[in-house]
Amino acid sequence: MEEEVVLTFNIKKGDGTMGFEKAWLNYYKSDNLAMRDYFTVVTYNKDDSIVKSAVLELTTAAKELFSIDIESSLCDMKSDVDKTRKGIHFQIGDNKDLENEGYRISLADEMLLIEAYTSNGILYGTFDLIRSTILGADVHSFNRTIFPKNPLRMLNHWDNMDGSIERGYSGNSFFFEHGEVIVNERTKAYARLVSSVGINAVVINNVNVRGTATNLITNRYIDKLKQIGEIFASYGIKLYLSLNFAAPMELGGLTSADPLDEEVRLWWKKEVQLLFKEIPSFGGFLVKADSEGRPGPFTYQRTHAEGANMLAEAVKPYGGLIIWRCFVYNCKQDWRDMKTDRARASFDNFQSLDGDFAENVILQVKNGPMDFQVREPISPLFGGMKKTNLMLEVQIAQEYTGQQRHVCYLIPMFKEILKFRTYCKEENDTVFDIVSGNTYGNKNAGMAAVANTGNDDNWTGHDLAAANLYGYGRLSFDPDLTSEEIAKEWITLTFGMKEHVIDYISKILMMSWPAYEKYTSPLGIGWMVNPSHHYGPNVDGYEYDRWGTYHKADHTAIGVDRTKNGTGYTTQYHQPNQELYGTPETCPEELLLFFHRIPYTYQLKTGKTLIQHIYDSHFEGVEDVEEMVKLWEELKGKLEEVPYHRVLHRLQEQLEHSKEWRDVICSYFYRKTAIGDKKGRELY
Amino acid sequence: MEEEVVLTFNIKKGDGTMGFEKAWLNYYKSDNLAMRDYFTVVTYNKDDSIVKSAVLELTTAAKELFSIDIESSLCDMKSDVDKTRKGIHFQIGDNKDLENEGYRISLADEMLLIEAYTSNGILYGTFDLIRSTILGADVHSFNRTIFPKNPLRMLNHWDNMDGSIERGYSGNSFFFEHGEVIVNERTKAYARLVSSVGINAVVINNVNVRGTATNLITNRYIDKLKQIGEIFASYGIKLYLSLNFAAPMELGGLTSADPLDEEVRLWWKKEVQLLFKEIPSFGGFLVKADSEGRPGPFTYQRTHAEGANMLAEAVKPYGGLIIWRCFVYNCKQDWRDMKTDRARASFDNFQSLDGDFAENVILQVKNGPMDFQVREPISPLFGGMKKTNLMLEVQIAQEYTGQQRHVCYLIPMFKEILKFRTYCKEENDTVFDIVSGNTYGNKNAGMAAVANTGNDDNWTGHDLAAANLYGYGRLSFDPDLTSEEIAKEWITLTFGMKEHVIDYISKILMMSWPAYEKYTSPLGIGWMVNPSHHYGPNVDGYEYDRWGTYHKADHTAIGVDRTKNGTGYTTQYHQPNQELYGTPETCPEELLLFFHRIPYTYQLKTGKTLIQHIYDSHFEGVEDVEEMVKLWEELKGKLEEVPYHRVLHRLQEQLEHSKEWRDVICSYFYRKTAIGDKKGRELY
Repeated sequence: MEEEVVLTFNIKKGDGTMGFEKAWLNYYKSDNLAMRDYFTVVTYNKDDSIVKSAVLELTTAAKELFSIDIESSLCDMKSDVDKTRKGIHFQIGDNKDLENEGYRISLADEMLLIEAYTSNGILYGTFDLIRSTILGADVHSFNRTIFPKNPLRMLNHWDNMDGSIERGYSGNSFFFEHGEVIVNERTKAYARLVSSVGINAVVINNVNVRGTATNLITNRYIDKLKQIGEIFASYGIKLYLSLNFAAPMELGGLTSADPLDEEVRLWWKKEVQLLFKEIPSFGGFLVKADSEGRPGPFTYQRTHAEGANMLAEAVKPYGGLIIWRCFVYNCKQDWRDMKTDRARASFDNFQSLDGDFAENVILQVKNGPMDFQVREPISPLFGGMKKTNLMLEVQIAQEYTGQQRHVCYLIPMFKEILKFRTYCKEENDTVFDIVSGNTYGNKNAGMAAVANTGNDDNWTGHDLAAANLYGYGRLSFDPDLTSEEIAKEWITLTFGMKEHVIDYISKILMMSWPAYEKYTSPLGIGWMVNPSHHYGPNVDGYEYDRWGTYHKADHTAIGVDRTKNGTGYTTQYHQPNQELYGTPETCPEELLLFFHRIPYTYQLKTGKTLIQHIYDSHFEGVEDVEEMVKLWEELKGKLEEVPYHRVLHRLQEQLEHSKEWRDVICSYFYRKTAIGDKKGRELY
Repeated sequence: MEEEVVLTFNIKKGDGTMGFEKAWLNYYKSDNLAMRDYFTVVTYNKDDSIVKSAVLELTTAAKELFSIDIESSLCDMKSDVDKTRKGIHFQIGDNKDLENEGYRISLADEMLLIEAYTSNGILYGTFDLIRSTILGADVHSFNRTIFPKNPLRMLNHWDNMDGSIERGYSGNSFFFEHGEVIVNERTKAYARLVSSVGINAVVINNVNVRGTATNLITNRYIDKLKQIGEIFASYGIKLYLSLNFAAPMELGGLTSADPLDEEVRLWWKKEVQLLFKEIPSFGGFLVKADSEGRPGPFTYQRTHAEGANMLAEAVKPYGGLIIWRCFVYNCKQDWRDMKTDRARASFDNFQSLDGDFAENVILQVKNGPMDFQVREPISPLFGGMKKTNLMLEVQIAQEYTGQQRHVCYLIPMFKEILKFRTYCKEENDTVFDIVSGNTYGNKNAGMAAVANTGNDDNWTGHDLAAANLYGYGRLSFDPDLTSEEIAKEWITLTFGMKEHVIDYISKILMMSWPAYEKYTSPLGIGWMVNPSHHYGPNVDGYEYDRWGTYHKADHTAIGVDRTKNGTGYTTQYHQPNQELYGTPETCPEELLLFFHRIPYTYQLKTGKTLIQHIYDSHFEGVEDVEEMVKLWEELKGKLEEVPYHRVLHRLQEQLEHSKEWRDVICSYFYRKTAIGDKKGRELY
């Protein structure tokens, strides 16, 4: 029997210079005529590359929104600024109160004034002004002082040097191809796009650093990296690289990568000089160590702190950061081993090191204890570490949430994550508080997302997946924005102000995460996917495997007891969370099967049995997708043909595939439990 | 989560010219001194390339067995043959009674006489003489007239032009590399090896003909193919190629491949000339059409007969054959479709065409209705077609039987297949009778095996897998040989005559197929494997997939009713088989779950319940492997170090992996049925 993987991931499409669309920077003509007159002249008191970008953005916007060729000029004497005429002025450097990338937009007499302490502030203020103009803002509404709420707002690209993207669903890399770094018009378009939503740090290569990617830190690729660095810098973005912990051996010919070995430490100190010296905007390194087969300090019986601090010392002279991932667990577990619980692993590996990490190390923690499932509890490392810089890692590449073939708007999930109270303190104790630095006053903190872009024309494969890229940026900048606000912004910017468009697409987006959750694995248990590629249902796909992701479903019950009577995972939380999760009665039901082993006949708060809930939610999930398809079809004629059909095609696939999910999951449990559906729907 | 396929198939090992071992042609010094004197001189009355090979084989054997430089000379006058002196004489061409590759070995005065009508007969007689000598034969035992029992004794290599081998478990191809045909010392070594067991036809390329492989029939590769053809010819082997039914479009630029289109027919007639003209020993083509996505006559609403006959007409002038595979089924079945039964497909697609195929077409039928599972019933096409040439296709590449990492000696299975009575006639009705041509007098008939070789040093990855290659050849030559006889021959030739060696390795081989069957999927149901690569247990791996291979296990029962009350598959058999398979009580229990849906509490003939049988057989299977490991370890010091450790290493892997099989299968059913093991062994 001959089988081919039917899904084609990472389809080769020639070189990275192919066509690309403008996504949400696709400005339509604006009828916000009251704002028109301000887009006639821009003056600025400093002309570094970032300010130049801001001026360029205003120039582009003026042209595309109002068909105006804006006049721009340097005006470095404050007294020379003409406040009597409508126009825009950038004032940089005076206001120490606006440091940390803040900006203020205000109306000063006739002039719109954008003030900032840093050039980044000016750029963000400019994008705000343009966005607000498109969204119909009145000029008198511009009296706002805004700070990005997270110091680091980062994207992690899992791009490989052969051009493939690990968990990439939008074509190939636009950073790498055939083992080389590539720089072209798309690089700049990318920088504009992500900077417009406030991204200020980008890791361009996969955390799994192998082969030639190990050499990215050497002078082999430095010319191209410099060019990327310059483009990024002009949009206020720092360039980061993922590194290979074993580089001293693989590149340096040393016999060890032991972080306490003097030779190794010296090697790193010498090696990192180049990047910082050649690329002024180089930010530092992301490290996946002792994780899924990657080398790390464990080899030398050293701690993660010893590993990270060695690198931190090397980059410290340049103000560099080491971002160290906490995704460390036993990926060779015997499924017969009932004692090991992967959910415990990050906390067990890192919590005891609290306080041991250098000031310029940030631990990057995935939102949940497992791996980007559609529903997980919050990682107990948030709130579990008080003397350590932490970042939140989320994934907008929809590895487990439909792979950009299904719509799954993740911003509502990210909102829930950020709002989660850890109870590590009496107040300011949410995940947002922790990763923004509020809780413990960390300067080095923030958010990172695994990116969902590729060299597809529309950047994200599914047009609606761009809402996650846009939304992640906006949310990391301002976590107080609601999911609906973000959705409406993105829809308007992308598709224009058209009847029903905002309303229907908003509905689709807002329905999509709950729908995906309903028709896939139930109540927080996760992992009922096909192994390796992770697309499509397979209830036992990981059940007898080595990844520590077991549901243990038998004839009568399903789930693993993770309370203190079970694996003890719940004890990693502070009270009252520990208690909340500790009994089925108090546990939030969407996480019931994550924390507890539950009989199929258990009665949920709805009065339904667990098994009936499984059946009902799966049928509901498919109905939701049917509704989404209908909503989209209503937009025929109101959108451009290409994106309309591109999305329609994927929605139709999603509908078929949601039925596949429904039928596999329901049939699996029907066959196992011998309990039929009360509503008599067809099970197989 | 990052996953890599842990198994490494088709490991690249540089070019195909690497080292290789002699396998069963690895002659040790012989102490059969009585035979020694005959290996001093060989005369022959014809000196074509095949006879030269036979002389060369004797020369090699004389040297290696007895350290003798044999004298050889042409002696074309019968009267010149010196019968008074010990020696060997080849007499070719006189005995019409020995046509069809037969030979006679006899003692004529002092001389050993090998007579044949064809040169192939001489070659086979020579290999017989050498083999018998090594096995200790007395010279007076040589009074035998032998005919190969199957006209075609074929190997099908699923080798791709990039050097990979589909379902290859012994390294890469030695026929292709980097898109080119390769010819080197190994080509000749291969020809010797397979000719020594009577193979007379070889298809060198994969039945799935794609990309550049389509061009194999053009002049692009003709020089290399000619060289292979010459090497093969000198060992009595005809070269065959797999072809792409869509070649008239892909190569010829035609708009159709319709077999009734005159232009298409003409194109094929012209195209095939080259191979037959350039390669005198070219035999014809193997065709996989309308199967698993391959093109075929269905596209044009033509029958398989119309498709095959078009090609048959094109090759007829050259005496060529078209071998047409019957592996045709719906590989995009909806698992929710309860009516379609893949087991029925070959019969349903072909039986009604009985009598429609040209004389030089042979239908190649897999042994079972599914696909090379460890246990299947016999395909009902055997006995179902009375006016059509049929060949049996088996697989010695162990795709579903341990992939040459587990020992699984398949000859006992092949014996059962060949002995199966179809009841298509009152006598001479076995599968052997049909495919040898006995039943209906077919001239074009025989056996084919999917080969298990690659460019590994030992040819077959697992040293003991060579027993399947050897055994397949010997069995296709002489189906009356017992599995034990074949095993003993192979062991002696490969490892030499040493204490315990024959005994212990025989035991291992003879235990291996039953053991594999015990610890994998139970009672003929098959398919409980990981999708795609097919290694390792996964009970639901294919359950909700599109391949038509479902067990439908629920809480109370397992299996699909394939009787006349179910899918009707049993009605494809003649009586009394139809009746035999028709009830659980009469059905052979090793096939019980293939034909019936059975409750776990059903009592088997042993008195055990089905569920207890599943538990017991799985624990027994592992115990058998433990025994196999022990037997092998007893041979330490009696075998050469390299093969000893190579096999030991694989046996140890097999032991661990058989436990994995046992525990996954048993736990799956324990969880589903809620019925524990009566013996209280640990389930998970």
